Order: sequence, then structure tokens, then C-alpha cells
Amino acid sequence: MSRDIAVVGSGLVGVVLALTLKKKGYQVVVYDKSCDIRTLDFRGRSINLALSDRGWRILDKIDIADQVRAIGIPMYQRAIHTIEGEVKHQPYSIKGDAIWAISRGDLNKHLIAIAEEAGVIFKFETPIWDVDLDNGILYTAKEEAMQWKAIKHDLVIGADGAYSRIRARMQKQSRFEYQQSYLHLGYKELVIDAAEVGEHKLAPNSFHIWPRKDFMLIALANVDGSFTCTLFMPFEGDVSFDNIKTDEDIRVFFAKYFPEVPQLMPDYIAQYLRNPVNSLVTMKCFPWIYKSKVALIGDAAHAVVPFYGQGLNAGLEDVFVLSEILDEYDEAKWDEILSRYQEMRKPNGDAIAELSYQNFREMSEHTADDTFLLRKKIESKFASQYPDLWLPLYDRVTFSTDTYVAALEMGKQQGLWMDIIMREDNIKDKWDSQEIMEKLKEIIQS
Amino acid sequence: MSRDIAVVGSGLVGVVLALTLKKKGYQVVVYDKSCDIRTLDFRGRSINLALSDRGWRILDKIDIADQVRAIGIPMYQRAIHTIEGEVKHQPYSIKGDAIWAISRGDLNKHLIAIAEEAGVIFKFETPIWDVDLDNGILYTAKEEAMQWKAIKHDLVIGADGAYSRIRARMQKQSRFEYQQSYLHLGYKELVIDAAEVGEHKLAPNSFHIWPRKDFMLIALANVDGSFTCTLFMPFEGDVSFDNIKTDEDIRVFFAKYFPEVPQLMPDYIAQYLRNPVNSLVTMKCFPWIYKSKVALIGDAAHAVVPFYGQGLNAGLEDVFVLSEILDEYDEAKWDEILSRYQEMRKPNGDAIAELSYQNFREMSEHTADDTFLLRKKIESKFASQYPDLWLPLYDRVTFSTDTYVAALEMGKQQGLWMDIIMREDNIKDKWDSQEIMEKLKEIIQS
Repeated sequence: MSRDIAVVGSGLVGVVLALTLKKKGYQVVVYDKSCDIRTLDFRGRSINLALSDRGWRILDKIDIADQVRAIGIPMYQRAIHTIEGEVKHQPYSIKGDAIWAISRGDLNKHLIAIAEEAGVIFKFETPIWDVDLDNGILYTAKEEAMQWKAIKHDLVIGADGAYSRIRARMQKQSRFEYQQSYLHLGYKELVIDAAEVGEHKLAPNSFHIWPRKDFMLIALANVDGSFTCTLFMPFEGDVSFDNIKTDEDIRVFFAKYFPEVPQLMPDYIAQYLRNPVNSLVTMKCFPWIYKSKVALIGDAAHAVVPFYGQGLNAGLEDVFVLSEILDEYDEAKWDEILSRYQEMRKPNGDAIAELSYQNFREMSEHTADDTFLLRKKIESKFASQYPDLWLPLYDRVTFSTDTYVAALEMGKQQGLWMDIIMREDNIKDKWDSQEIMEKLKEIIQS
Repeated sequence: MSRDIAVVGSGLVGVVLALTLKKKGYQVVVYDKSCDIRTLDFRGRSINLALSDRGWRILDKIDIADQVRAIGIPMYQRAIHTIEGEVKHQPYSIKGDAIWAISRGDLNKHLIAIAEEAGVIFKFETPIWDVDLDNGILYTAKEEAMQWKAIKHDLVIGADGAYSRIRARMQKQSRFEYQQSYLHLGYKELVIDAAEVGEHKLAPNSFHIWPRKDFMLIALANVDGSFTCTLFMPFEGDVSFDNIKTDEDIRVFFAKYFPEVPQLMPDYIAQYLRNPVNSLVTMKCFPWIYKSKVALIGDAAHAVVPFYGQGLNAGLEDVFVLSEILDEYDEAKWDEILSRYQEMRKPNGDAIAELSYQNFREMSEHTADDTFLLRKKIESKFASQYPDLWLPLYDRVTFSTDTYVAALEMGKQQGLWMDIIMREDNIKDKWDSQEIMEKLKEIIQS
């Protein structure tokens, strides 16, 4: 009995999900309000992302990892650009692990083509305005204010992002837990063009960061030689999008904080003026499922701030876990399948939201704090000396498939251990002594 | 220039708001998806409420308080029914203040009639599905899936309750803060019929409570001699709506915990089986306004759990504050008027949500706790001895017009003072000594 499944949303998670389900033998139709992204030209705007181990897992499972790697660039280290113009390098892992920069738009185009080839049906320009949860009926119309048409499926999966319409219907149920909260930071995208086609102006295999405490600029390489940059900055306040508006404001701001930019990006003022400021939401909800009929996945179920680079990876891990459950369960028992999916993923959705927010706080509050930097130095030295005893939190989140819940817990435990070591007398002077390394080892093993 | 105002929702807050605005000379149209409540007969289901000082303030201001009092019953005290069948009385205030039990349905009918008489236009059976925030355009249709019709007003006020459609549109804006959260308790309404017409089976001027720690029953008198009761109980767990389902379950449950009920309410089993279980939500959001075009009020802006009896009173206080601002400001400057309204009310909406939730925790966690009861006894003795130094939190919330923010803060301060006094040696033995009273006085005055 082949179930007929609707996936709402043709973003990365929606398409990978559709392909995964198709390969398992289901009929799959993907609905999206937008036109086919393959008909669009992205020059001048290509949102970037960093794919890490959790994301690769499902791509490997459905045999498309190699095709994706072909359009990505591995990043083995952070390149930290100081205000003095120095560049400091921090390898991501001692084992040589990398995260992969890939253009979101290019990846999406590729995935849609692969999924269509595999038999997934795409219905573009088909906005879904509402869903009948009990009956799996989607309602569509060109405009919301027009007469709606009903489309029935056996199962509806909402992969329609942080502003999900499927979730909006679920939110109207009694006892639906929901919260959305925004950072005081927004972001604006900027592009560094290629020196020549395929030739990068900065080292391509690094994740470039210009940290400036209350705001920062990052840059990720594209295969065409360009870099996609993101400027994170408060909406309001002293140094903010509100206060930096004129050509002169922009010129002064970059000259002061990012003096390399005018050379890397000669049209930076025009780009800054042209590109919009976007906001950063954390969204949590529960439940993610409705009986055997409806489920949420990816950003529709858990939207996180981007400071751990895990938003997409968490969504792809949802797909992986769902596919593992499907391997195990009787495929007729969708109520059990969805319950198990929710049970396994909801705590991890909460955990990655917390980890992402923590990382934002760390970056914005602590990076200039000497005690914090000392902690990080001790952790780092200990981890390289005793790699079996200390996997740094970043590595556990990015380069392991331990659950996010386990990563969050171990991160807290490591924090407690570090609290103890930081109370040692004269820790500032003897932090890199063997005595301290041994003490930390004792604490961990006790 | 008379502004043309739409009020969405014909509940109590919506109608009082409409009448207030009409009396100020505005054109006011009220929209509601339901039929005219005056065409309905309520026998068998009449949700009750307790009106207190904040609510009366706006009714006084628009000269309808006497008409409302005529259909209400003042309650001067709590009547606490113990499991042993005793009744303990606690006056609400030493000054003889009362809260008023009024049938929600009857009050709503009266208010609509008064508002209509004053020239407010009511459009019943006119569901509003969406709003264009920038242009103040409402969209209506018989069913959401049908072609919508646009209706334009100068200003739209959403008084459409905890599940507000106006707010749903605002929630889709970037940087809109939102959270909804449910208690593990639900509630079910039950009715004690009149002994004979107009004759009550219990003392009518008391608020009756049967507290049983994890669940409780309350009863408020109606003018026709009946009582509206509410049973609060967990959805799931040991003693819960999930576990009490059959005739026999219900019989055993009431016999054990509320042995008076079968006599007061001979058809209690039928009522229990027939009436639905409702949920209890706390909802917070921000902003409450959109430029000079849209505002939220009452439960649409701040839904709270009912354990302080302040939900409606908070909504009516919103109307009072808005009307005071209108008295003060140039009526053309609606952006300033709405900003001022939000600035004054949002912190108080948060404060009453916190107070209401605190009271729920107190009732469910502490009422059987000896230390907690001792604290309450000391506070109560001190308040009666030094009424100028100690207005109990309940009185400040219920019988004063101090802001909820001030009440919450003073409640915390009083808590800190009590923490100090509770650390006195042998406090259990000498709690009602003059020594303790003087110590507390010293602490407060220091």
C-alpha cells in the first residue's frame, strides 16, 4: 500500500525529504508558493550555508552526497580577521574535519532536478493557505482572498519554514505550545566578486570572520570565485542598521571596522544600500505532529539563530531520523512512526535552539572577556593533549552524530569542570602548566 | 474629524470599548463571526466571572455601572469547603470590599443592547479572516475558503480574544514577539440549579471553593438562584479528566473529594459527561499596535490563566487607560495615542500574566505546605494590625487601581520581608506575638 504524501515547501529540507520518501516507494507531491527556483538567476544574491556531518548523513544515505560535494567548498579552519588587519587561523578539528560552504540556491536547484528525475512531482506557484488536520486536506488558491481548492493526501508534511502555514493551523489547536522570539541583531548580505572566474580574493577553504564584539562580518566562498558575506549588527543603537544609512555613514563604518572591505568589494556602499536587513528568529513549538495525518519538519518545527551553523543540518537530521524510523516500522502504522519521530526529534530541536542561542551570547558577550578566553585556551590545550577525554562542544555539535541533547548536556558538564579549574590559585600564570592539565584530568575522572 | 473605527469581536471588552469610543463621538462598527448573542438561550451553560475594581472603573466612567450591578451579586468573602465538610470564611477585605459575580452571557447581552442604543453598529455573522495592517482593511467571507470581501476603516482594534485573527496577522511580521503556553490543568463547567427560582442552595454572597491541592471546584452565584461551578483538574495523571470518564469513575471521585455535590447537583454525572473540558492558556505578545492603524486589546493582547480572577478586569482596564489617553491627546494623533496605550499597558499585561500564574502555583503547590500557611497567617495578622503598612497582594490586585506592575513589585518586596521574619528562631511558636509584629514593622520601615 503506497501512501500518497504531500510535502509543503520546496526548500532544501522539503526536497531532501521528498526524495527520501520517493526512494522508499511513496508517491510524493511537493507544493510551493514560489516559482521553480531553476528558472531564477541568482547573480548578486546567493545565500550561503555550511553543511556538516549531520547534514551529510542523509545525503549519503540517499546516495547524493557526491553530487552535492561537487558544488561545495570544504572549509578546514576559521580565518579570524582582527581590526589591526592580522589573520589568525583556527583549524576546526585536530582530525582535519571540514564544514562545507555551498550556495543555497545552487544546491536547491540541483536537488529539485534530482528529485524530479526520481519521480517526485513538483507543484510550483501553488500556495497552501490552510490544512484540514483531521483529513489531510490542503487548501490552495492563487491569492488567499480567493475561493480555495481542496487537495487531499494521506499524509501532509510541513517543510514550509519558520513561517509555516501548516504550523499556523496547528497553533490554533488547544494546548499547542508555541513561542517565537527575535534577536536585537539583524543581518544583511553582501557579495565579494571573484577576482576572475573561479579565482577567490581570500583563501577559499577558510570560514572568514571579522569579529567586532557587538557586530561581525563573515564570508563563505562560492565555487565561482565569489564570497557570500553576512553582516550581523543590531537593528537599533550606537552602531546599528538604524544609524548607518547614508553613503557617508557606510564609508566611515567600514573604514573604521572593516578596512579591507572597500578593496575586496568596491561596490560595498551600493550593496549595503540595496540589500535588505533580515531578522533572526528562534521558534519552538509542540506538538510537531497531528495523529497519523500531519507532521512538521525542519525550520517549520524548530527555527534557530544561525550562530552554530546548524539550522539546515538539524532539518536534514530530522529527515535522516524519520527515514531510519521508516526502515524499522511497519509502514502502515503512521501514527506510531510520527510519534516516534516527534519523541526522538523534539528534545533535539530544543537543544539546538539553546546551543545556537548560547553561541550567540558567547560571541556577543564573552569574546572580549579575558577570563572567557583563558577558559577556551585551557580547554583547547587539554583537548589536544587528551583527545579521548575532551571533545570540544563545537566538535560534538558539528563533527559528531551524538544527539544535540547529549552535546548540550556534555557542554554543561564541561562548563562545571572548567568552573572548578578556574578557581585554582594563580590560574592566569600557570594555566598551561602540566599541573593544571593533570588537575583537570583528575576532576573529569573523579 | 470623526474617525471610523472597527472593533473586531463583540465579547465584553469589545463592546465596552465600542461604547466608550461611540460616546467620544467616533463612528464604531463591531464585527463578530458569531450570531447575535441576544438570540441565544443560555440555560445549562453560563460562564461566570468576577468583576473587581479595575473593571468597574470604566463602567463608572461611561455611566453604565448601575445597570451592570443590577444583574450582579457581590461576594464579600471566600467560603472554603474542607474535605471534612467544614466551611471556613475569609472576608476579601477588612474594609468590606466585594468582587461581583455576573453571568458573562447576560452581561454581554445587556452591553450589546446598550451599545446599539448608543449608535454602535453591530455586524454579526461576519467573520474577519485577515487584515491589511498598513491600510486598515478587514477581509470577510462566510467561510475562510471563499472569495473574501474587503472593508476599510481608519482604525482596526482587535478585541477578538486569545485566538485573535488580528494578532495572527501581526504575528507574521518580522520581530513580533509571541508565546502561548498551556497549563497541565483543564476545566469543566457544571451548574447547581436554584432551589426554587431566585433561591440559592449555598450562601450567594460568598465565592465558594473546594480546594483539593491538585484540583479544585469553585462556585459563583447567579441572580436566578443557580450557581456556575468550575472544576479545575489535570488533563492526565492519577486524578485527571483522562482517568475519570465512566459513570462509576465520576461517582467515586465526587463521593471521595466533593461529597456535597450529589445533593447540590443531582444530575452531576450527566453534566460531567456532557460538558467539554477546556484548556487554560497564557499568551504574551509584542507589539500590540501597528502604526496608527491597528491595536490589540483584552485577551487578544494578553491572555492569562483565571486564578486571579483578573482576565476580564485587565481587559476593561485596557479600555479605561485608552479612554484616559483619548481625553488627553489630540484625537488626530492616533500614532501617538496607540504608542502611549501600548507603553502604559504592555508591562501591566505581562505583570498580570505573571501574577495569575504565580497564584496558580501557590494554589497548587503551597496550600498544603505548613510554612506557607504560617506566612499567610503572619501577613494577615500584621495587615489587620497595621493596615497602612501592609496591603496584601490580593487586595492590591483586586481592590486597588495601583498598576499590576506596582502590585507585582510590592508583592515581591513583601515576600523578601517575610523571608526575613520567617528566619526568626521559634517562629512557629511565637508567630502571633507582638514581638514578631514589631520586628516585621521594623523590617518594613528600615
